[in-house]
Amino acid sequence: GCHGSAATEAGVVELNPPRGTRDFPPEEMRLRTWLFDHFREVSRLMAFEEVDFPVLESEALFVRKAGEEITEQLYSFEDKGGRRVALRPEITPSLARLVIRRGTSAPLPLKWFTIGQCWRYERMTRGRRREHYQWNMDVFGVPGVRAEAELLQAIVLLFERLGVASSDVGIRLSSRKVLQVVLDMYSVPQHLFTKVCVIVDKLGKMSRDEIEKELVSTGLPCEAVQGIIDVLSLKSLSELEQVLGSGAAEAVADLKKLFSFAEQYGYADWICFDASVVRGLAYYTGIVFEAFDRQGELRAICGGGRYDRLLSTFGSEDVPACGFGFGDAVIVELLKEKGLLPHLSPQIDDIVFPLDDELQGPASCVASSLRKNGRSVDLVQDKRLKWVFKHAERVNASRLVLVGKSEWERGMVRVKILSTKEEFEVKAGELQ
Amino acid sequence: GCHGSAATEAGVVELNPPRGTRDFPPEEMRLRTWLFDHFREVSRLMAFEEVDFPVLESEALFVRKAGEEITEQLYSFEDKGGRRVALRPEITPSLARLVIRRGTSAPLPLKWFTIGQCWRYERMTRGRRREHYQWNMDVFGVPGVRAEAELLQAIVLLFERLGVASSDVGIRLSSRKVLQVVLDMYSVPQHLFTKVCVIVDKLGKMSRDEIEKELVSTGLPCEAVQGIIDVLSLKSLSELEQVLGSGAAEAVADLKKLFSFAEQYGYADWICFDASVVRGLAYYTGIVFEAFDRQGELRAICGGGRYDRLLSTFGSEDVPACGFGFGDAVIVELLKEKGLLPHLSPQIDDIVFPLDDELQGPASCVASSLRKNGRSVDLVQDKRLKWVFKHAERVNASRLVLVGKSEWERGMVRVKILSTKEEFEVKAGELQ
Repeated sequence: GCHGSAATEAGVVELNPPRGTRDFPPEEMRLRTWLFDHFREVSRLMAFEEVDFPVLESEALFVRKAGEEITEQLYSFEDKGGRRVALRPEITPSLARLVIRRGTSAPLPLKWFTIGQCWRYERMTRGRRREHYQWNMDVFGVPGVRAEAELLQAIVLLFERLGVASSDVGIRLSSRKVLQVVLDMYSVPQHLFTKVCVIVDKLGKMSRDEIEKELVSTGLPCEAVQGIIDVLSLKSLSELEQVLGSGAAEAVADLKKLFSFAEQYGYADWICFDASVVRGLAYYTGIVFEAFDRQGELRAICGGGRYDRLLSTFGSEDVPACGFGFGDAVIVELLKEKGLLPHLSPQIDDIVFPLDDELQGPASCVASSLRKNGRSVDLVQDKRLKWVFKHAERVNASRLVLVGKSEWERGMVRVKILSTKEEFEVKAGELQ
Repeated sequence: GCHGSAATEAGVVELNPPRGTRDFPPEEMRLRTWLFDHFREVSRLMAFEEVDFPVLESEALFVRKAGEEITEQLYSFEDKGGRRVALRPEITPSLARLVIRRGTSAPLPLKWFTIGQCWRYERMTRGRRREHYQWNMDVFGVPGVRAEAELLQAIVLLFERLGVASSDVGIRLSSRKVLQVVLDMYSVPQHLFTKVCVIVDKLGKMSRDEIEKELVSTGLPCEAVQGIIDVLSLKSLSELEQVLGSGAAEAVADLKKLFSFAEQYGYADWICFDASVVRGLAYYTGIVFEAFDRQGELRAICGGGRYDRLLSTFGSEDVPACGFGFGDAVIVELLKEKGLLPHLSPQIDDIVFPLDDELQGPASCVASSLRKNGRSVDLVQDKRLKWVFKHAERVNASRLVLVGKSEWERGMVRVKILSTKEEFEVKAGELQ
């Protein structure tokens, strides 16, 4: 549109949505609904139940001191009652909060999914969006990699439904236990684990030198820093075993079991081990993974992992948990690039049109009765017949129902099937 | 749950959602989805297209100086960049904003619906919620009451789908043009129209004396105040014509045409004229309506009206428009009271269960292939068979697929149909 903003009694009204946010006009909304329906259908196949949470949460739910980008860009503010609140940057803390609220009476495991809007606030204007929608699937109460195996199947089922192949997209996976082993080797204190993970995740966005400097500044000895950097370049489980020895037994066993599951589920082609995958969220403790485009042009399509110790940070007993977040932005970029975005037109069954102003009453009656039969009916008036035909094409209507004077006097309406151009008269009462 | 809040590194994490907001655990979410699906299905029958907007908008979009409750309770704040923003209290201004953005190239009429969360902030704690979801249907570009007639059919179609009868619920309607006529009779300046409407809407919540005082304080002469109060008690169009004479011709003609449409659509039983209906939003200009429970115990179930002059308050040319908002709170109260709330259980097709830990691989394979056939499959492990049967009942599963050692060696799985208790073996590869 050509409009930017306009002066009014209230000052200046911005006609665009707030910076970094989107309107969804019908054509954008059809695409969003199409994508979300796929999210929902995969969740149904996996037998996950849908849940939802307020988009506004107490700020404390998201405050963590590990230097994560997600908490540094918190869209937080003080409400009129002086409480610190935030537009959620992610949904996992809300999920954890609800698991705790339900208490021990709820039978585990819980398999939940949600699709919701998440927010961030950046001062810089890099043209990045401040909101996106995210599909989350989470499992609470399953300690073994069965849970991860299920989540990975969900992601692969989604890709397959969208027409994406394993030659387009892969899923890299690793375990944070690998880094834990390295830190243990150099007797690095436990409280540095999370910080190290968050720093290491920036590899790729920052230079290796900068990463090393940041690691050193947390108090890590140089050999530990070197050990960390070295282990991240490992690309196979056998290399991992060679370099880390028996210390890595648990991490390797998890990963081997997960790869074995992948064979059985039938998605082994999609996944690969990559020790450089760490993910940027502070709370992951075990397996971590991310889906990536094999051309290497896009950011991660989705990411997730195990977070067995999140609930205790909220003062509750821990429950083993893992999950992923799958945003609505990168996948749409990928589908666009691959020519996989569908052309979605409106779907209207019938257009009812009175040929004469006096026939508005009968047209109401016809439209009403078609709707009661389950037909989607657009009742048009005050237009020329030419406009109506053009409109019928635009909205992809299947029939045109014309209410004309001479027909109506005989209790009839004229029906035109738009795909075949077939035209006939029907008794108004018998029109289905 | 028994948990309230917990101390953490971040301070105190509140385990309940923020005051006045809701979590949607699976059972609440099923109900919400059920209701929203009805909203969407009715919108489809009426051939409206879905749109959506950011929940966060520029504050200026909602600031009006007419003393409306909705603007006095604006959940607004300053963002980190110093901009005044608000969690939207209603969706109509966003709709109008998008209509303006699309400009004159978009063919009119536009028939749009949306379902979104709306927010308010009250300092007082009256146990009222700070958020609710609202279904909006709006028509842009239709000047006559045809648009209102369509909106009323949508509301009635919804009630019928939910099992609500015209003996439970009615829709009161009037026109703001009635008040306009009274103000014109007493030569009240035009700029007071909106304020008068907003004050008069409080009748019922405030005493008649208080209303009269407020009207006088805007500068209205006492006879005008008396004229307003008198006209509000009129309950028929013929009374209205008698009292207001030819000045009310336009209002009466609109209402008569709308009642005549209602006969043709077949929902005349649901609607009645009631001059006391004014609605509390500043921008209504013509027909206004609200649905109410005939027992008179609940607040309005939904409300709407014509707002032909909203777009010019945003600096654009006006487009005739009308719409309604239908919240998720009062309708659920009504359905609960009438015993019309459905019992919604999860719907899972198959539970797959390996009888032996070694059979986790085969179980993965079975679950994966059922899911690829479109079945909703819950893969259970590390449980006793007794638990699995109980679980199957809880999630309303139709089949139990047991993967046992001796059967698997023969390439078979054991299937139990849970409704009939029928049990048989099937070749794993042939299970559908």
